[in-house]
Amino acid sequence: MRIYLDNAATTPLHPEVLEYMLPLMKEHFGNPSSVHFHGRQTKALVEEARKKIANVIHASIGEIFFTSSATEANNLIIQAAVRDLGVKRIITSPIEHHCVLHTVEHVCGCHEVELEYLSVDQFGALNLDELDSKLAENKGMTLVCLMHANNEMGALADVKKIGEICKKHDVLFQCDAVQTVGKYDINVNELNLSFMSGSGHKFYGPKGIGFVYIKGDNKISPLIFGGAQERNMRAGTENTYGIAGIGKALELCMADMVEHKEYITSLRTYLMKSLQDRIPNVKIVSPEDGHYCILNVAFPKNEKSEMMMFNLDIHGISASAGSACSSGVAQASHVLEAIGLSADYQAIRFSISHYNTKDEMDFLLEKLEEIL
Amino acid sequence: MRIYLDNAATTPLHPEVLEYMLPLMKEHFGNPSSVHFHGRQTKALVEEARKKIANVIHASIGEIFFTSSATEANNLIIQAAVRDLGVKRIITSPIEHHCVLHTVEHVCGCHEVELEYLSVDQFGALNLDELDSKLAENKGMTLVCLMHANNEMGALADVKKIGEICKKHDVLFQCDAVQTVGKYDINVNELNLSFMSGSGHKFYGPKGIGFVYIKGDNKISPLIFGGAQERNMRAGTENTYGIAGIGKALELCMADMVEHKEYITSLRTYLMKSLQDRIPNVKIVSPEDGHYCILNVAFPKNEKSEMMMFNLDIHGISASAGSACSSGVAQASHVLEAIGLSADYQAIRFSISHYNTKDEMDFLLEKLEEIL
Repeated sequence: MRIYLDNAATTPLHPEVLEYMLPLMKEHFGNPSSVHFHGRQTKALVEEARKKIANVIHASIGEIFFTSSATEANNLIIQAAVRDLGVKRIITSPIEHHCVLHTVEHVCGCHEVELEYLSVDQFGALNLDELDSKLAENKGMTLVCLMHANNEMGALADVKKIGEICKKHDVLFQCDAVQTVGKYDINVNELNLSFMSGSGHKFYGPKGIGFVYIKGDNKISPLIFGGAQERNMRAGTENTYGIAGIGKALELCMADMVEHKEYITSLRTYLMKSLQDRIPNVKIVSPEDGHYCILNVAFPKNEKSEMMMFNLDIHGISASAGSACSSGVAQASHVLEAIGLSADYQAIRFSISHYNTKDEMDFLLEKLEEIL
Repeated sequence: MRIYLDNAATTPLHPEVLEYMLPLMKEHFGNPSSVHFHGRQTKALVEEARKKIANVIHASIGEIFFTSSATEANNLIIQAAVRDLGVKRIITSPIEHHCVLHTVEHVCGCHEVELEYLSVDQFGALNLDELDSKLAENKGMTLVCLMHANNEMGALADVKKIGEICKKHDVLFQCDAVQTVGKYDINVNELNLSFMSGSGHKFYGPKGIGFVYIKGDNKISPLIFGGAQERNMRAGTENTYGIAGIGKALELCMADMVEHKEYITSLRTYLMKSLQDRIPNVKIVSPEDGHYCILNVAFPKNEKSEMMMFNLDIHGISASAGSACSSGVAQASHVLEAIGLSADYQAIRFSISHYNTKDEMDFLLEKLEEIL
């Protein structure tokens, strides 16, 4: 039995998405920038994907740009906002993904940009009063970079409230929505977002493709210069299969969202309750009302719990000791450190998809008991 | 009959490459950064692809980094060389691809970096004495950015000589080898390259994936910050199918290179001679000893030749009026302008692959005669 419980790191490609991509990998291989038949064929599919994504997040078609990943999208926004929009201060949190944290550190190191972090509590909740009061101090144009859902422990930010605060102070708000696109309803206008990023492979779409929403009135230049693709915002021949695939994947996710949410929530709740019942001293790190796909739990550190990832793997269970977006070397998690999880605990993230079953949860629970 | 003669814009995916990619799009979907079974499976394939590319171009495995495109690779090199390696001058040519030209314009606009262009003759040949004498003036660290083969008219640069000149003056040499990787033997050491870029979809590999060779002693930081992927040089979850595919595609190209080169050369020569015999006043823009896949020809401008792209398309023939890497809007070619092609000519690029046949050339010739 092989059980995949690392869906926050990456999801399997939906078979219908692959089926939709295949013609572009076979006969429809043209370069969308070519004006001839072969080019027009793929251009149409690229624009159809853009329309699908725009529709789902309530954006205009002209506000969606394809990138190679959400990491690239976040880099584009942060680097370009500082370069082109006169940003003098960035406010973020210590639990953001490394592609935000390392990029803000880079730009603030190179430019005269102040960097401030909001404090977070043990459940990953941001102090939004602190955001409001920081923004009340006028320090020039500010970019607020806060993620929708934390990838390691599933804390959900109150994006609506953050958007309202940002609007009140007339600052830019960038939201890394990698874990929530395709899993939650998102309306970029209602949330007052200036920028938002998403990634195909987190919602059963292909790897190597992401997108960025750039609200129409934010005029930025590219991160990657060259040809006029993506209306001069992102050069390079389009990843046509990836683009078609991400559009299709999002469409499919939205069609099944309510059903999948209910099903995955039931698995998560079952796993959480069972762990509390059956494993002594287990600590549920994720907030109970956090992301319905993510359950981060911690065990008192000892010889057995420290080998848990390794032993789960031997039993055919793939889970994560933290974010997968790193070197593959086990490192202390900056997120768990920021929420103050004691170093006496060994945390494991189980991230669930609609492909998982109750039987798999039972198998996992059995193996956890065995290991501990 | 549909005839594809735009292989310099993009090539069809080799069926064996697709076959090799499919398991990664189905069961082997793990994130290579994950330490568990699903992650290790794909990590192995990513590293195998890196090894294949390194072997073909005679680089070390640690000198190959995957990017989303050659455009991104060229951006990384140019932006990082200026930022991290103290480059004070860039020498390039007016016939480079826009992803080089627009990037050098951008960095030279933002930083105190001098920008110089070599002159080119009517066949796209660079003046290398001029390069030597420019480099003899000591103007601080210099980055020379010159492509291996021009994408629009197929002029081949004497990369070996350029490398020798750059070595003599101890400057950095970046070579955009997008049109030659997989088509010619390339040895990065013999050529004294500091950096080189390639793109999968130009040699029957997938779109959305490229690579950059960075000679070991050039310590640069990323363009895209975040996770520790690509040994901290390029963040973002790996495009695993794309990476596997580009490695496989290059391997296949090299296996058949001599045979394909001979075959495509024969088609190109046949087309060139037949055009000269059958079409009055045709001008062969490409140098006779240029890239064996590219034949750029020009016709005196008149009502008929100006509609030629449109009419060829109607007859099922896909060719290009210039580079495809643009907005799809017909624009004057900066390359043809730089080599001094008179505006009284209408140029068309036919770019040939081993999938093309002599029958297709005959059909093309017939239709050209009809149109004119």
